[in-house]
Amino acid sequence: MAVIKAALLGYGTVGQGVVEIIQSRKKYLEQLTGAEIKITAILVKHLDRPRPLPASILVTDQFEEILDQKPDVIFEAINGEQPAYTYLSRALDADIPVVSANKALLATHGAALFAKAEKKSLSVKYEAAVASGTPVIGTLTRLLQVNKVVKLEAILNGTTNFILSSMHNQGDSFEDALKAAQKEGFAEADPANDLEGWDAFYKLMILSQLIYGKQPDWHEVTRQGIIAIDQSDLKQATLQGERIKHLAILEESNGKIIAAVKPVHLDSSHSLYGIDGVDNAVTMTTELAGPLTLRGPGAGKMATASAMIEDFLTLFEDQPEKQLQL
Amino acid sequence: MAVIKAALLGYGTVGQGVVEIIQSRKKYLEQLTGAEIKITAILVKHLDRPRPLPASILVTDQFEEILDQKPDVIFEAINGEQPAYTYLSRALDADIPVVSANKALLATHGAALFAKAEKKSLSVKYEAAVASGTPVIGTLTRLLQVNKVVKLEAILNGTTNFILSSMHNQGDSFEDALKAAQKEGFAEADPANDLEGWDAFYKLMILSQLIYGKQPDWHEVTRQGIIAIDQSDLKQATLQGERIKHLAILEESNGKIIAAVKPVHLDSSHSLYGIDGVDNAVTMTTELAGPLTLRGPGAGKMATASAMIEDFLTLFEDQPEKQLQL
Repeated sequence: MAVIKAALLGYGTVGQGVVEIIQSRKKYLEQLTGAEIKITAILVKHLDRPRPLPASILVTDQFEEILDQKPDVIFEAINGEQPAYTYLSRALDADIPVVSANKALLATHGAALFAKAEKKSLSVKYEAAVASGTPVIGTLTRLLQVNKVVKLEAILNGTTNFILSSMHNQGDSFEDALKAAQKEGFAEADPANDLEGWDAFYKLMILSQLIYGKQPDWHEVTRQGIIAIDQSDLKQATLQGERIKHLAILEESNGKIIAAVKPVHLDSSHSLYGIDGVDNAVTMTTELAGPLTLRGPGAGKMATASAMIEDFLTLFEDQPEKQLQL
Repeated sequence: MAVIKAALLGYGTVGQGVVEIIQSRKKYLEQLTGAEIKITAILVKHLDRPRPLPASILVTDQFEEILDQKPDVIFEAINGEQPAYTYLSRALDADIPVVSANKALLATHGAALFAKAEKKSLSVKYEAAVASGTPVIGTLTRLLQVNKVVKLEAILNGTTNFILSSMHNQGDSFEDALKAAQKEGFAEADPANDLEGWDAFYKLMILSQLIYGKQPDWHEVTRQGIIAIDQSDLKQATLQGERIKHLAILEESNGKIIAAVKPVHLDSSHSLYGIDGVDNAVTMTTELAGPLTLRGPGAGKMATASAMIEDFLTLFEDQPEKQLQL
């Protein structure tokens, strides 16, 4: 049977999920692809940590050694735009298609990577970078074949949605809700990235690139977090039959893209009014198909890894003869 | 430029939508497919009705004449299992891929059509048959590549959901809510198909075929409509913080498929609790990606036609060399 050699950049939670799915779904993936998928190399930051991996997998902290293995596909599950951008650029230079879950990277360098990939008829897949296992990218990609997206409104950060939900449903203070989120593992020890809206902002920029083929000037995007929201704001909203939700909003008006991440008052008729907890949700108002809402997990080891494996499988649809030579 | 000859069976609301999209998106579809898509023939029931169509399109009530045109693809937008099944069987026999929006046909003869199509490496596409423009079929198809669907709960009939929403939100009686639905064009003059759960039942059987590769024995499926629900039931539910929703439910237990269409009490934590009006919504509980919910229009001319055109475009991904010879 043909073998597909896969390399993995990063062996954190998501990277481990990718390895687990490839192992546990081995037979099934073989049926689908007609090939055996083998993780042959993993790039890590700290070589000295113990990892329960078979000796057949090269574990290295040198990206060169990953390329030397000539992988057929690279899964990237590290954080931050660098060195991820350098790695993925070099992967594409070496004719290797990539599957990434890295939102900061894709928001910042997505356009450059897509352009480089297109020149070489390769794919850069990134379903997992926005809303984890919730297939927002795939759904939008297909809708955009026939539909224009007139407006997009979304809950793209599970942490802030969890905090606002707890404040609303349990009457928690902001501080208590944040502590509860951290205790549940929904918020980082340093939660600024979520609370100040950066996480949602990156995802929104990725969606703008997909929907409009470009991004707005980042300085012109409103980015407002939820730190200033307190119980009195929520009670006032409730009195008016409304909820406060931390939304990411995108629309085009006269060729100009208007984007914002900010707390918004929603009444009960809004499709995002009832989205509680750590879920993400996206409402896409389309020209022909009307408003569609997709709701699901916004994070999580297996949900995110599952989206990366789905991306990998779509490489067989996109130019298989070039990308995955079996 | 290459030409793709498309034939259309049925020229009701949805069929007209298909023609409109192919005309209004002409240039865009040419870019995507590299070919000009021409509707060359339309099968109608009543030949004598006036139709504002160009003379280049053959309008006929004889299916033979459709086949004589040797179309590259057939769009089917008629109602009921026959004669649609005969037509589509013969289309596949003649090596023509088909795109259908016909739920009664697909629930009844889907398995036979899929088997016939598979033998010939052809596709039968049917996104529009379940939840119209809401891409339930496409989303499930992709999820199933990596995920198992553990349970599916759905609002698959917009009419009954509209009636229950009106009864709940405006305090309408069942009769008044039904009249309002008919006035808005959301319910047929003879609404039995919706109210007794047949419409949702057909869609659920299509989903069972997709998810489990088979259907339960139809006689063992609970199919309960909403006719017996009155204001006192809704008030009782509201007192308990619940809503009554008309759900279609599907799960597999020990290799046996359990399916039901029936009114169910939902508490506010349920993802389908807040789905009001004529929308459809599907919650898929998956093994890895968790519960995903997709919400959107369950009917409508352009939403349904748009799903059919998306299906048509996916024919280029599935065995293009055989299906659409450009």
